[in-house]
Amino acid sequence: MQRLMMILLVITVPLSVIGKYMHWSELALFAIACAAIIPLAGIMGRATESIAIHSGPKIGGLLNATFGNAVELIIAFFALREGLIGVVQASITGSIIGNLLLVSGLSMLVGGIRHPQQKFNRIIAGTNAAMMLLGVVIALVIPAIFSLSHPDRIDIKLSIGVSIVVMVLYLLGLFFSLYTHRNLFNYTEDMHPEEAEWSVGKAIGVLALATVAVAFESELLVHTIDAVSQQLGWSEVFIGVIIVAIIGNAAEHSSAVLMAWRNKMDLALEIAVGSSLQIAMFVTPVLVFLSLLLGNPMSLVFTWPELAAMVLSVFLINFLAQDGESNWLEGAMALGAYVIIGIGFYFL
Amino acid sequence: MQRLMMILLVITVPLSVIGKYMHWSELALFAIACAAIIPLAGIMGRATESIAIHSGPKIGGLLNATFGNAVELIIAFFALREGLIGVVQASITGSIIGNLLLVSGLSMLVGGIRHPQQKFNRIIAGTNAAMMLLGVVIALVIPAIFSLSHPDRIDIKLSIGVSIVVMVLYLLGLFFSLYTHRNLFNYTEDMHPEEAEWSVGKAIGVLALATVAVAFESELLVHTIDAVSQQLGWSEVFIGVIIVAIIGNAAEHSSAVLMAWRNKMDLALEIAVGSSLQIAMFVTPVLVFLSLLLGNPMSLVFTWPELAAMVLSVFLINFLAQDGESNWLEGAMALGAYVIIGIGFYFL
Amino acid sequence: MQRLMMILLVITVPLSVIGKYMHWSELALFAIACAAIIPLAGIMGRATESIAIHSGPKIGGLLNATFGNAVELIIAFFALREGLIGVVQASITGSIIGNLLLVSGLSMLVGGIRHPQQKFNRIIAGTNAAMMLLGVVIALVIPAIFSLSHPDRIDIKLSIGVSIVVMVLYLLGLFFSLYTHRNLFNYTEDMHPEEAEWSVGKAIGVLALATVAVAFESELLVHTIDAVSQQLGWSEVFIGVIIVAIIGNAAEHSSAVLMAWRNKMDLALEIAVGSSLQIAMFVTPVLVFLSLLLGNPMSLVFTWPELAAMVLSVFLINFLAQDGESNWLEGAMALGAYVIIGIGFYFL
Repeated sequence: MQRLMMILLVITVPLSVIGKYMHWSELALFAIACAAIIPLAGIMGRATESIAIHSGPKIGGLLNATFGNAVELIIAFFALREGLIGVVQASITGSIIGNLLLVSGLSMLVGGIRHPQQKFNRIIAGTNAAMMLLGVVIALVIPAIFSLSHPDRIDIKLSIGVSIVVMVLYLLGLFFSLYTHRNLFNYTEDMHPEEAEWSVGKAIGVLALATVAVAFESELLVHTIDAVSQQLGWSEVFIGVIIVAIIGNAAEHSSAVLMAWRNKMDLALEIAVGSSLQIAMFVTPVLVFLSLLLGNPMSLVFTWPELAAMVLSVFLINFLAQDGESNWLEGAMALGAYVIIGIGFYFL
Repeated sequence: MQRLMMILLVITVPLSVIGKYMHWSELALFAIACAAIIPLAGIMGRATESIAIHSGPKIGGLLNATFGNAVELIIAFFALREGLIGVVQASITGSIIGNLLLVSGLSMLVGGIRHPQQKFNRIIAGTNAAMMLLGVVIALVIPAIFSLSHPDRIDIKLSIGVSIVVMVLYLLGLFFSLYTHRNLFNYTEDMHPEEAEWSVGKAIGVLALATVAVAFESELLVHTIDAVSQQLGWSEVFIGVIIVAIIGNAAEHSSAVLMAWRNKMDLALEIAVGSSLQIAMFVTPVLVFLSLLLGNPMSLVFTWPELAAMVLSVFLINFLAQDGESNWLEGAMALGAYVIIGIGFYFL
Repeated sequence: MQRLMMILLVITVPLSVIGKYMHWSELALFAIACAAIIPLAGIMGRATESIAIHSGPKIGGLLNATFGNAVELIIAFFALREGLIGVVQASITGSIIGNLLLVSGLSMLVGGIRHPQQKFNRIIAGTNAAMMLLGVVIALVIPAIFSLSHPDRIDIKLSIGVSIVVMVLYLLGLFFSLYTHRNLFNYTEDMHPEEAEWSVGKAIGVLALATVAVAFESELLVHTIDAVSQQLGWSEVFIGVIIVAIIGNAAEHSSAVLMAWRNKMDLALEIAVGSSLQIAMFVTPVLVFLSLLLGNPMSLVFTWPELAAMVLSVFLINFLAQDGESNWLEGAMALGAYVIIGIGFYFL
């Protein structure tokens, strides 16, 4: 698997540089950038992991919890700089529903085919359910509804306030899982390898290189979305919600499904739900603040279809997880919901 | 009880034929058709049951799961042919909320009066909760929200896509309960008599006759709704949501309440929730496809009051069922919600 | 604590009388009235408690359950008489979200700092969850959605019907907790002192005096809201939702937090959730009926921000409580949600 990823990397990154300067078609460049980001995201994850192991469990947990979605952040940064706020919001939406429905769904389905009934910690599932209700539903519904009747931009002020509250709660959540209630999360030690793959120096070097490459590919991706949208007849929202999100989260997808196959359902859900929470409660607030600095302020007011997709995903996954058990049918339901939402965005 | 039903049948069916050709008032014809459909629905259920027993548990389960709501399908067919899409959607809404709130509510109330606390399988309740969230909430909210901003008919294309996904999930659900996780549903063996009431030949004959009669009464019902609505001052939606739905589900009502009285709460909820799921995930998609053939395409975009009624019913019943226990107060709550929604449709 | 309250009382009540007749600034009068209502609400609670103890557990439970929010009722009465329907609806909203998020949240946070994991009765939490879904979500969403498409006032007729159903269910709920399922609620005996603080005669006297004083302060409060709103630049809705609600519920706040600190989480949640249910299912219907008598009919159609705030609060608290356990992070989440909603109302 890792060898395959290296080959993909070695082919796509040079190709994209060549393609850009030889003015290949935008569709080709978009496809190559997508193909390059998948292994780069994997490498960045492994480098962060190595640094985290060298830093000890607490700082390491913090590093994983804040840099785990660095690729999404980089893609969004370039989109924000271009003023493509719709694309940023679409890719946030896509990451959240992709992790909640596609990653959890595939994990429950694949794990459930091998194991008739899979169990996971109900206390954590309950805490995560409430966290998602807060970080996704409340944090996004309140700005949407409260700015309905106000044509003047209360949405930006409101979004800044909400972003601060949400980020404080995310940090309190880290304090909870890494410090006061660490024992509840013991199982996550299995998630991380015991020995670092690389030395700190090498890991930082790899991370720096990969970040530069991701930045290059992300810029290419963002610049070609418009043309790809017109040529394929897909809306920009569909590309942002479905395509970009799948690429950015490919690494999470494969590890979560592997954990589920090994009947470590706690880990699989931790990856899927943890990643959604990170996008909603850390990446999104950071992007709101960043958008102010870049002069293209982004609010937390998403389109109604995006909002509906996220809210329904949270409710479905909460109902699926509330009994602390899963089976293949529940996985099929999550995937079915993802397909329904995908069809919706396709026709938008 | 069965004798009473036979007497009702022998009186109402001939009366409705006589009445139709002697051009009795539409109000009278509507009332007679309603009174005839109740015992006919009961007989069709018993005939299907007999065929199911002769076919063995798996084919039998499939038969029950697909033909259990044949009456609703026949009524809807005639309404669709007349282009009365609003009436079809209202009767779908009415069947779903009637089963979820009225049937479950009466079961919990009547059972709860005799037994202080009634228990049922939480795993199944959880799976059903997620299934309803998918088949009712997600499958209907996504088309409603996504077609809000699109005046052109993306709703039909979207509804076809969603209907296919929903029906596949319903079939997977049958595969789950009849095959891979059959043992979870052992208790449902109590629901079906051990010996068939009729031979296969006789059952098929009864079914054919009853279907013809139901078809006749359904056509009468559909043709008189408009006049009844004007004469009584009730909206067509109220008639569809409340009156037609109660008639079509009278058989389920009585069996579920009987099971609850005997403290077989698993069976009572299986009837109520199973019937809702069948309407939402099998009958509704079939009607969407049928409406295309009939040239009066019906989408999954319901009115906002209908959507709100269905979504709130699903959430209430999920909250009531999530702890695997019920009492008379929970039954009273479900009935109270049904009355609130009924008042709403009355004033529409 | 009680001595402090008495000092506050002895200072603020005379001051508010003097201030009113000397025409002090409205901001000063508003602040004094607020400061006076806090101890008066406490005294009314203690007097009701004494009468309840003398009346035995059943009549006593009924008294507590119906007069526990007398202060909110009196404030709302004066606002209704002035035709300030928006202020009444805002203070209902504020009481509900204040009890659900602020009182529960503070209890879970403060209790959770001392006790890593606090448990409470899941059966009661489940029943309360369904009751809130009915009394807050269904009872308010149905009128809002169903009157969307009807510019003529179906909302008043609908609201009267819904109010009757909701109040009947509230009374059935009392019958459940005081009579048929009394044993489930045994723990609440700890909530009430064994001996009455005052004799019946003295308690009635204190109650009468305090009611007169509260009525005086409430009238002052209602008359000064408009001026305060203009001078501070706060919307009337913000004052109603946040300020008035905190004042009216200060007594509940302190007792609930104290119970949580002593690890009596059942009692803390009983106070918070019980008070919300009382506002939604008893005080609100009474105000609907009262508004008809006063000639300023109030419907159950709240503004969308108010509705969203209440619905989301119910869902959050239901997700937090469904596992029968709480911790400090869950408390922080409820408080975070309260701050997010507060920011929203501030910017409205």
